[in-house]
Amino acid sequence: MGKDPQDLPGLDPFRCSRRNFIIMGHRAVSDGSIFLNDLCGASGRWDGLARALSSGLFLSHDMRRDTSIHLLLLGPPDPPKVISIDGARVKYLNPDERASAALMRKNLRTKLGEDAGTTLRTSPGIHLTRGGLETILDRIDGPVFLLHESGEDLTDCMVNGGIGEGPWNFFLSDDMEFTDKELSLLRSRASGVLSVSPLSLHTYQAMILVHNALDRFG
Amino acid sequence: MGKDPQDLPGLDPFRCSRRNFIIMGHRAVSDGSIFLNDLCGASGRWDGLARALSSGLFLSHDMRRDTSIHLLLLGPPDPPKVISIDGARVKYLNPDERASAALMRKNLRTKLGEDAGTTLRTSPGIHLTRGGLETILDRIDGPVFLLHESGEDLTDCMVNGGIGEGPWNFFLSDDMEFTDKELSLLRSRASGVLSVSPLSLHTYQAMILVHNALDRFG
Repeated sequence: MGKDPQDLPGLDPFRCSRRNFIIMGHRAVSDGSIFLNDLCGASGRWDGLARALSSGLFLSHDMRRDTSIHLLLLGPPDPPKVISIDGARVKYLNPDERASAALMRKNLRTKLGEDAGTTLRTSPGIHLTRGGLETILDRIDGPVFLLHESGEDLTDCMVNGGIGEGPWNFFLSDDMEFTDKELSLLRSRASGVLSVSPLSLHTYQAMILVHNALDRFG
Repeated sequence: MGKDPQDLPGLDPFRCSRRNFIIMGHRAVSDGSIFLNDLCGASGRWDGLARALSSGLFLSHDMRRDTSIHLLLLGPPDPPKVISIDGARVKYLNPDERASAALMRKNLRTKLGEDAGTTLRTSPGIHLTRGGLETILDRIDGPVFLLHESGEDLTDCMVNGGIGEGPWNFFLSDDMEFTDKELSLLRSRASGVLSVSPLSLHTYQAMILVHNALDRFG
């Protein structure tokens, strides 16, 4: 680990929320060159990450203050890097894709060191961390759940005894499947593989269903 | 009624899907002047309508072919007008907000007559209809459900006997509350008032939860 997260103003971004969603952005542009007029193509599916961010943090007239979203950016030019957004502390976030991507772009303009685990607070409730899946798995607290269509139904789990008191860490992929290496790492740490629908859904749709199961039964 | 929908190529857009979502766009720009770089402000919350469209029609690698989305545009300069998008027939729709708003803008450039009920097919799976809530209520087939936080839980309804075989018509508001006049019209026709969460959610989030309840139990 690089810089000790205890040195930062505020808490460790990986340990400050009860509900954590970690989204793999396999091709997502990893610096301030996100192109707002082409989030889908040239920016490596930042449209999907922006939707995941918004779906994960927004209520109708409030934020989910118990939730953090961690977007793992694996696209060029500066991977791997995580941008973490804490629903309790973030400011200036709007629900539309363009505005939320613009806020992420602004934060990603800050230069980040090369040592795995280095974390920088770039604005209220937003942190950058150098590292990939292993770094995240080293840092998080509480059980790991892999979201996958093949998993056990989360609502059934909640009705039949629940999934503990949290904090929880839900790992989802973007529009691409998890790679074999990612799956192997995650399965070695996962407390369970969960599904939320009989159909195959977009990441942001699955996140809304996870929240709903926890809101109802958590 | 103006033009008879039977004259159109294809089906009546209000009667071709089992799942219909009708979204009130209280300030939504109602012609081809939607401003893609400011969907949220200058376009009258078209960001929310674009998210509703995408959330309602997209599966991970497919479309919901049993679903139509009807966006009721009540903002300037040419209200009231409905743009209907049929998941079974629409082409060129992408999941990101900007691209879906761009497709709607293109279709909204077609001039529409002034007679209430006039319907025009503007591209595959997309129709414009002149009229407001009363026109929609005259045209639809099957029961009307009002989505509102005060309603009965949809999952409970599904478990305890369901909500019939469909077609279903789910009415939701955008970020503004239904007006008293809208509520009065809807309540006079509604078979039920439904809720999907113990929390107050965005329109698109509620739509995903409606779909999920139907996917599980419908």
